[in-house]
Amino acid sequence: MQQTNTKQVVRWNQSEPSYIEDDLVVEEPLEIRVGQQSLIVVMRTPGHDFELAAGFLFTENLIKSENDIEIIAYCKDENTQNKDNNQYAEIDSFQNIINVHLKDKIVLEEAGWQRNFHANASCGLCGKMTIDSVKHQIESLDVEFRLNHKVCYQLNSQLLAAQSVFEKTGGLHAAGLFNAKGELLIVREDIGRHNAVDKVIGQALLSEMIPLDNHILMVSGRASFEIVQKALFARIPIVVAVSAASTLAVELAIEGHITLIGFMRENRMVVYSHPERICFE
Amino acid sequence: MQQTNTKQVVRWNQSEPSYIEDDLVVEEPLEIRVGQQSLIVVMRTPGHDFELAAGFLFTENLIKSENDIEIIAYCKDENTQNKDNNQYAEIDSFQNIINVHLKDKIVLEEAGWQRNFHANASCGLCGKMTIDSVKHQIESLDVEFRLNHKVCYQLNSQLLAAQSVFEKTGGLHAAGLFNAKGELLIVREDIGRHNAVDKVIGQALLSEMIPLDNHILMVSGRASFEIVQKALFARIPIVVAVSAASTLAVELAIEGHITLIGFMRENRMVVYSHPERICFE
Repeated sequence: MQQTNTKQVVRWNQSEPSYIEDDLVVEEPLEIRVGQQSLIVVMRTPGHDFELAAGFLFTENLIKSENDIEIIAYCKDENTQNKDNNQYAEIDSFQNIINVHLKDKIVLEEAGWQRNFHANASCGLCGKMTIDSVKHQIESLDVEFRLNHKVCYQLNSQLLAAQSVFEKTGGLHAAGLFNAKGELLIVREDIGRHNAVDKVIGQALLSEMIPLDNHILMVSGRASFEIVQKALFARIPIVVAVSAASTLAVELAIEGHITLIGFMRENRMVVYSHPERICFE
Repeated sequence: MQQTNTKQVVRWNQSEPSYIEDDLVVEEPLEIRVGQQSLIVVMRTPGHDFELAAGFLFTENLIKSENDIEIIAYCKDENTQNKDNNQYAEIDSFQNIINVHLKDKIVLEEAGWQRNFHANASCGLCGKMTIDSVKHQIESLDVEFRLNHKVCYQLNSQLLAAQSVFEKTGGLHAAGLFNAKGELLIVREDIGRHNAVDKVIGQALLSEMIPLDNHILMVSGRASFEIVQKALFARIPIVVAVSAASTLAVELAIEGHITLIGFMRENRMVVYSHPERICFE
């Protein structure tokens, strides 16, 4: 599957236009189906789609472990396959639909799946309720994991060095999973920040690495509520963002006992929650 | 409504941790209801919520003009209002639910609302189909609008200068609407890139400025498919991103006759589609 694609573009430099070939990041829809039921269509960069589906189901609390999954496969419909007139599809369009078969059938409505949000007219809708909804599904992370601040300062350059597609296109988010020594174990790139995180967690899930209670999750952009939520479901005690964190991300990190770090640079950082995990030695 | 909130954080500078107060961007859920039906919950930065709701409905093709809207209002439920125990809600939680009443009732399922995606097992799911689905709903933009390249180079600094919250927090996306002279008319900031665009287009819609066929939309980050889709519904012929564009964004821009520009800097840019709109004089 192609993650980049070459297009002719016009590059203007001051008043000089020139026609050049440029590498663009590929964006394609992916539909995730559970049983025969359509769950969601996400816009994603192709590749590691099984991990994306597994990670999505897991961090949305629709499955509890890799044992809940029987089969993950691309949709096949040979009778009607006719892509000859499709001028855009550089990838097989059937690779844009994933079927997940679970061991125990779930009915999505009964599982209460609404991206974890429940609007309730009797009490309004607020950040606290959103946090409570997540907390209701998962326990706080009471793990002893400690990290030397020097390990943190090494994370950024490692993630950047591993971003092969970003280097070509400048158009991708990245997520990386590090161990306690600060070694990069898994890195995934995607046009969607959430997708990159789902692919990392999905890979960890399918490799039976979860709970990740002595690991670090790093994201290339900002830390929003949903990034922290995904880390909490995967039991990751330290979440690092290259950029800023939102109020709700910090509040969920405090409640869930996650150490949330932002503005990660080579010799400085901002620790938003549970700073006791970061130490000198 | 607060767009930023102060929190105590630990700033590490090399091996020196210090406790400081930091401004964070506020993230809160917003539920948009049409009639009594819940349409979506988005995570957004509070403020300009009516514009967000109007822009969302318009760029998802659920309404055709501002005339379709009868009332937009925050949910009020005085009988059950009890927020005393809510330690997080710096804003009124009822300001996180918006009711939109339309003149003609629509049934969302019948309107085919699925974020414009239709999975179809008989032909797979691909970028072309996604583009066709949008094209089916809206015509291409055959407008004569031309822009001098020098006007483009001024856009970036204007948008950045207007990003008041970004300056404080480093945590927000921005979208701006410019006229043909390159004057910034509307700017909105939000933790979600799509939300910032919806707020801009919603403001234009409520001000009866649509179609915006001699205007420019600029976004602070990347240009994805959905950003171009929103511009197409608002009839904006030129879309500018500070960062890269995806393949599908470019393909929709080509099909919809939108000039898509990326990597916008003070003296250079990359034009991905319909470069004929950019000229010397």
